[in-house]
Amino acid sequence: MALGMTERLKPIHAAVCAMVRDEIIPLDEEFLSEVGKAGSRFVYTARQTEILEGLKAKARERGLWNFWLTHSDRGYGLSTVEYAYLAEEMGKSHLAAEVFNCSAPDTGNMEVLERYGTEAQKEAWLKPLLAGEIRSAYLMTEPGEASSDATNISMSCVRDGDHYVLNGEKWWSSGAGDPRCKIYIVMVRTPTEGKKHEQHSMILVPAGTPGVEVLRAMEVYGDDDAPHGHMHIAFNNVRVPVDNLILGEGRGFEISQGRLGPGRIHHCMRAIGHAELALELLCKRSLAREAFGKKLAQLGANFDIIAEARMDIEMTRLLCLKAAWMMDQGDAKAAAPWISQIKVAAPRMALKIIDEAVQMHGGAGISQETPLARMWKHVRTLRLADGPDAVHRRQVARQELSRYLNGKV
Amino acid sequence: MALGMTERLKPIHAAVCAMVRDEIIPLDEEFLSEVGKAGSRFVYTARQTEILEGLKAKARERGLWNFWLTHSDRGYGLSTVEYAYLAEEMGKSHLAAEVFNCSAPDTGNMEVLERYGTEAQKEAWLKPLLAGEIRSAYLMTEPGEASSDATNISMSCVRDGDHYVLNGEKWWSSGAGDPRCKIYIVMVRTPTEGKKHEQHSMILVPAGTPGVEVLRAMEVYGDDDAPHGHMHIAFNNVRVPVDNLILGEGRGFEISQGRLGPGRIHHCMRAIGHAELALELLCKRSLAREAFGKKLAQLGANFDIIAEARMDIEMTRLLCLKAAWMMDQGDAKAAAPWISQIKVAAPRMALKIIDEAVQMHGGAGISQETPLARMWKHVRTLRLADGPDAVHRRQVARQELSRYLNGKV
Amino acid sequence: MALGMTERLKPIHAAVCAMVRDEIIPLDEEFLSEVGKAGSRFVYTARQTEILEGLKAKARERGLWNFWLTHSDRGYGLSTVEYAYLAEEMGKSHLAAEVFNCSAPDTGNMEVLERYGTEAQKEAWLKPLLAGEIRSAYLMTEPGEASSDATNISMSCVRDGDHYVLNGEKWWSSGAGDPRCKIYIVMVRTPTEGKKHEQHSMILVPAGTPGVEVLRAMEVYGDDDAPHGHMHIAFNNVRVPVDNLILGEGRGFEISQGRLGPGRIHHCMRAIGHAELALELLCKRSLAREAFGKKLAQLGANFDIIAEARMDIEMTRLLCLKAAWMMDQGDAKAAAPWISQIKVAAPRMALKIIDEAVQMHGGAGISQETPLARMWKHVRTLRLADGPDAVHRRQVARQELSRYLNGKV
Amino acid sequence: MALGMTERLKPIHAAVCAMVRDEIIPLDEEFLSEVGKAGSRFVYTARQTEILEGLKAKARERGLWNFWLTHSDRGYGLSTVEYAYLAEEMGKSHLAAEVFNCSAPDTGNMEVLERYGTEAQKEAWLKPLLAGEIRSAYLMTEPGEASSDATNISMSCVRDGDHYVLNGEKWWSSGAGDPRCKIYIVMVRTPTEGKKHEQHSMILVPAGTPGVEVLRAMEVYGDDDAPHGHMHIAFNNVRVPVDNLILGEGRGFEISQGRLGPGRIHHCMRAIGHAELALELLCKRSLAREAFGKKLAQLGANFDIIAEARMDIEMTRLLCLKAAWMMDQGDAKAAAPWISQIKVAAPRMALKIIDEAVQMHGGAGISQETPLARMWKHVRTLRLADGPDAVHRRQVARQELSRYLNGKV
Repeated sequence: MALGMTERLKPIHAAVCAMVRDEIIPLDEEFLSEVGKAGSRFVYTARQTEILEGLKAKARERGLWNFWLTHSDRGYGLSTVEYAYLAEEMGKSHLAAEVFNCSAPDTGNMEVLERYGTEAQKEAWLKPLLAGEIRSAYLMTEPGEASSDATNISMSCVRDGDHYVLNGEKWWSSGAGDPRCKIYIVMVRTPTEGKKHEQHSMILVPAGTPGVEVLRAMEVYGDDDAPHGHMHIAFNNVRVPVDNLILGEGRGFEISQGRLGPGRIHHCMRAIGHAELALELLCKRSLAREAFGKKLAQLGANFDIIAEARMDIEMTRLLCLKAAWMMDQGDAKAAAPWISQIKVAAPRMALKIIDEAVQMHGGAGISQETPLARMWKHVRTLRLADGPDAVHRRQVARQELSRYLNGKV
Repeated sequence: MALGMTERLKPIHAAVCAMVRDEIIPLDEEFLSEVGKAGSRFVYTARQTEILEGLKAKARERGLWNFWLTHSDRGYGLSTVEYAYLAEEMGKSHLAAEVFNCSAPDTGNMEVLERYGTEAQKEAWLKPLLAGEIRSAYLMTEPGEASSDATNISMSCVRDGDHYVLNGEKWWSSGAGDPRCKIYIVMVRTPTEGKKHEQHSMILVPAGTPGVEVLRAMEVYGDDDAPHGHMHIAFNNVRVPVDNLILGEGRGFEISQGRLGPGRIHHCMRAIGHAELALELLCKRSLAREAFGKKLAQLGANFDIIAEARMDIEMTRLLCLKAAWMMDQGDAKAAAPWISQIKVAAPRMALKIIDEAVQMHGGAGISQETPLARMWKHVRTLRLADGPDAVHRRQVARQELSRYLNGKV
Repeated sequence: MALGMTERLKPIHAAVCAMVRDEIIPLDEEFLSEVGKAGSRFVYTARQTEILEGLKAKARERGLWNFWLTHSDRGYGLSTVEYAYLAEEMGKSHLAAEVFNCSAPDTGNMEVLERYGTEAQKEAWLKPLLAGEIRSAYLMTEPGEASSDATNISMSCVRDGDHYVLNGEKWWSSGAGDPRCKIYIVMVRTPTEGKKHEQHSMILVPAGTPGVEVLRAMEVYGDDDAPHGHMHIAFNNVRVPVDNLILGEGRGFEISQGRLGPGRIHHCMRAIGHAELALELLCKRSLAREAFGKKLAQLGANFDIIAEARMDIEMTRLLCLKAAWMMDQGDAKAAAPWISQIKVAAPRMALKIIDEAVQMHGGAGISQETPLARMWKHVRTLRLADGPDAVHRRQVARQELSRYLNGKV
Repeated sequence: MALGMTERLKPIHAAVCAMVRDEIIPLDEEFLSEVGKAGSRFVYTARQTEILEGLKAKARERGLWNFWLTHSDRGYGLSTVEYAYLAEEMGKSHLAAEVFNCSAPDTGNMEVLERYGTEAQKEAWLKPLLAGEIRSAYLMTEPGEASSDATNISMSCVRDGDHYVLNGEKWWSSGAGDPRCKIYIVMVRTPTEGKKHEQHSMILVPAGTPGVEVLRAMEVYGDDDAPHGHMHIAFNNVRVPVDNLILGEGRGFEISQGRLGPGRIHHCMRAIGHAELALELLCKRSLAREAFGKKLAQLGANFDIIAEARMDIEMTRLLCLKAAWMMDQGDAKAAAPWISQIKVAAPRMALKIIDEAVQMHGGAGISQETPLARMWKHVRTLRLADGPDAVHRRQVARQELSRYLNGKV
């Protein structure tokens, strides 16, 4: 169980670290400050495009691209463990994941197309996604149902000749606000008889198909996350060719299990990067400010806060690497409980450390002066995205109890 | 130690509850949705003025006004314990505290003027504040210093003939964004020799005095809290008459101790209201949604989450009432450790319960669909405002240890 | 809601405090060191009898006796709120509760006899118990069943002419090891048809009745708590007259609800005393020892630990007083959720503070050098006795949710 | 960074697991029940000797012996990472560590002799210790000083001709109660001038040397841990030859750093075994008992408790393996912060899970019915032994902050 950095990874890691630190982070705030200047918050300004496409071009040119696609000829050839070290670095910057074409939800969507798509689907959508030419969204959650239990998903998808007709609403369609977003993968209920986990399907719906109406941007603690956006979208008699179905009717859960594993762990890897950055800012602030004649570091429980943060990061990173290693072994079912574990542990850890860093910064911490508040809001979504904590704990517990049972509890 | 609701309070409490629930809460979201429609986010739209002044007129007419001013002929005649029950209700609505002329930072500022102001200062500023005609700000925190130790405050205030000249910067000047804000109380360093706690003063500076420059609005997790606003303000050779000084040179800390006690506890009282609202929303959601064939309430640790929330609220409310009762006994020094206790306990408790409520709501919880995210951001500031948690814990600990010492530790 | 110390209580409280501090605590360790010296650990040595009966005689003589019996002509005339202040002081000593005839399980058992006993039962058992001449035990928990759900209780009790015949096993029969224990109140299953909560009864069984066999002493983290003892007892065809039944067949739960309320809260009151003592010891130690050139108090998170302990104690005491006040209002059903709340909150708080005090003492803390380890073991049992935490949280949650439902969840 | 089980370890691990489960655990309780039957609790009964020596003989015969001695010709040839997997299994049984000659404090003492002893010292003491013929104790902590700062250690050691004369007291001398304990390694203060960390020395004192007086057994939550024992020992003019000094005057801290690293991590490895056993017992109980018509597993927060336990174990084990791996790299200074991290994390994690297991078992959990209470008491000592948590957190924090400083904070 080799969890360390491999020799072949070291130069790549160094290149990614350097580019994140020296070229991407310095442009993060400028990019964000441009939001809204083009009139709509969901239109890119010329400067935003220049920043983002400029960085992407550099990354592509240097071969720092599509690291996430493991175990595939199309990919970079890294293991998931190796990718974890890179993703952590990307977590320290707002833009970095996209710069290296490693950002959600595209990676998950590309994963679906790579594994389950037809050749035609790959040609149409996977190719430009891998090239970073378009972006995509994944439409799962619905406003009317508890999505902790995905069998609740109810968007109707009925066959009509050689088309499917979709009706219903989705929200938290992350990335669907981006004008470059061209394709949606949509989880729908197809009217099949049968088992609870065989009634749903996944289907490709191009953005802008007639009947698709973007109602509003959902806000994350007041932040619309433009121009990415988490959109609330209505489907009114949206027609797509039957060829747009992925894998087959009733196979939605089969796909979502394949899709969500990597996606979940990528979020966790980046959350560890957030936590490292927060701890660095916390330590620096604790040494830079004084009160009662001492450095803040030397006051109150601050030694303990710092030590606990370091311990939490180390333990969580190791768990994340172990979960990545399990995925690399090729048995998705065996890896699943490990992904559930890290899915609970990593965001919680990162939120705690970011919050301590906020507190150490006083008023600056909650404000636009540091990236901490923005990071906190982002990580807070991860306790809900791709399954709330409670559902993942439930999975871990049932797996644990099954060791002592013949059946499931 | 009577901590219950008094007979005379009951009808007032009922009137406040009814008005909050039936007349104010229904307008909260509309008021907020108007922000920015007048061009600037810090200008009121006609509709905003209509909503706010309409509600204020009703409250004033019904005699539901200035409850916070305890132990004064100018006030309503309530004890702090009695006020606590009302403030809790106001905490459930965005607008309510202001509607009853009980909102921060005005209450604290009026407290200062009431206790320490000259007759002329009272006539000029206390009178219109008590009437709800103008608003005010309190300028303490500075961007360059750790304000956990207020002796760090460095804004220069030098006498020049019959004027003082102020130079420096303040930030987190809450309410200074409001166009109705007409007066600032400013904590400054006067160039006195002497003890550490006798080098600061408080001085009145009318908004718009030449040399006062509002640089920007500080954001709370991305929210500028317009039109209230937490402003970053520069003072460049700002001249005010010497009569604007409050109480005398070097007496700033004496005033701030008097000011901050009530202000701190009022925040806590409202935080308990936030928590009650969050628990109500949590419970209702847990009964309204289903997953895995059960109501959410019946799943996972939700019974425990609900029970712990109820227990935390009850214990915190009792501690808040006890602190209020201590204040009512008239010995501010004896009450101080109690206020420090509740200042730590109440925001922490409210944040935890709001966060659980967010989690129970899934995507809706972090979004604009509920008041939860907004409440969380507001309460998060309370762990820093008027002294960060660590400073209050320090006070409580030193008080505790002093029982076993002749001197202080 | 008067939660403070009443005027009439003050002299009584002062007398109890003085006697606990000056006369009882100084004998605690000597009493405990005698255990086992009489051959059996469950036989009193002459010195133990001298200590205990000597103190009891003094307390009785001074009228410091039976404070716990509220709302009864036989009692002292205190309210439950008033008693709370006294019980807290008793919690600081191993022997004190018994010295004032206020110790478990006798108080609960006397409560049952006082409220539900026949005149003959009162004459036979209540009278000598109130006089402190005998002691008693309450036999509820059984080794074979999860006693978190008391409807699981299965000890058989079948009528045979004018006797009942009991068969089964009980354990954790606290106090049954004491040679002065003369009477058991036993929860049994009577073979009634009907509702789940109407199938159990309570019956009086004199210690030493043929067929009663004390199998062993249960240990609490290795401690048999002799000579009190938590005994494991077998009943083999134990015959008692039908007149020994309390209240009637099928009314066991009705009685247990009446019994357990006061018993639960008394434990909590004393747990607060434990916590106060632990915090005192913690503070003193933190000032007495040095490391790295500083008093321990000034190192690490110790200020925070002390402050949090103080806050936790204050909040928990207030909740306990509120629960006591609810009981004093006379509506047991309304008071029940408050008792469940404090039953969870008080032991948890005390355990945490005792554990911090242990840690502050280093090796001394876990050893026989301080009362801390013994106190911890005792309080740990309270998270199980009279219902485990989870059951009480369940009650609180169901009560909370019922506000939003027509029925129960 | 290979943290997995190596191929060569697998058969050894299987042999150890099988022997622990099938041959050692079944004798644990019988061994413990014999304590005290020989008159003194610190004398072995014939049956105890038979059990222990019988098992040791088997282990030695099978070559399952001295696994702990890594990086030495005398040892088994395992890495620390490999040993961690074995030590974890030993943690599940009371006797196992000693059976494989891998128990504290002998392993640490042998480590000292192996690394720093003269040939004569090795011949006299290391040889019989490696053979399992005698046992040893390590005398560091003193009753009069805060041992969180080991520079406080004050036992006097003055040269007198070719002897040293020792005076003072030690306590918590673990293993010194064992009649087979023949040698003490004692930390003393030699009267050298110079730096704070160069004033102490380590010296060998044979048990029974005139002037050595064992005063009493310290109790751990009431448990004397006989016949091992944590003894309080007085030294009155104890004379030992100068050749008994280890390494040289003033080099005590140099040795203790070398000694404590492995010792600390071994405790942690076994604590993980405790936690695994506790979780197993918890799960089994949760499936075996019912309340309110359901298995306990399905009630309340039990799924969450189980899931969190599994996550905590996994993260802590990985951190322990990483710390072991750091030790295997050969740079003790670099490994030190990792050992501090696991020293805090592992006992805390194990205590929490054991406590949850206790709670799930109800009355049985706190009693002699399960090994849980005994395990809890043992693990609780680990938060103090070899440095209290606070000191280790301090080390971790200072290391973290030093990344942003030129010097130390």
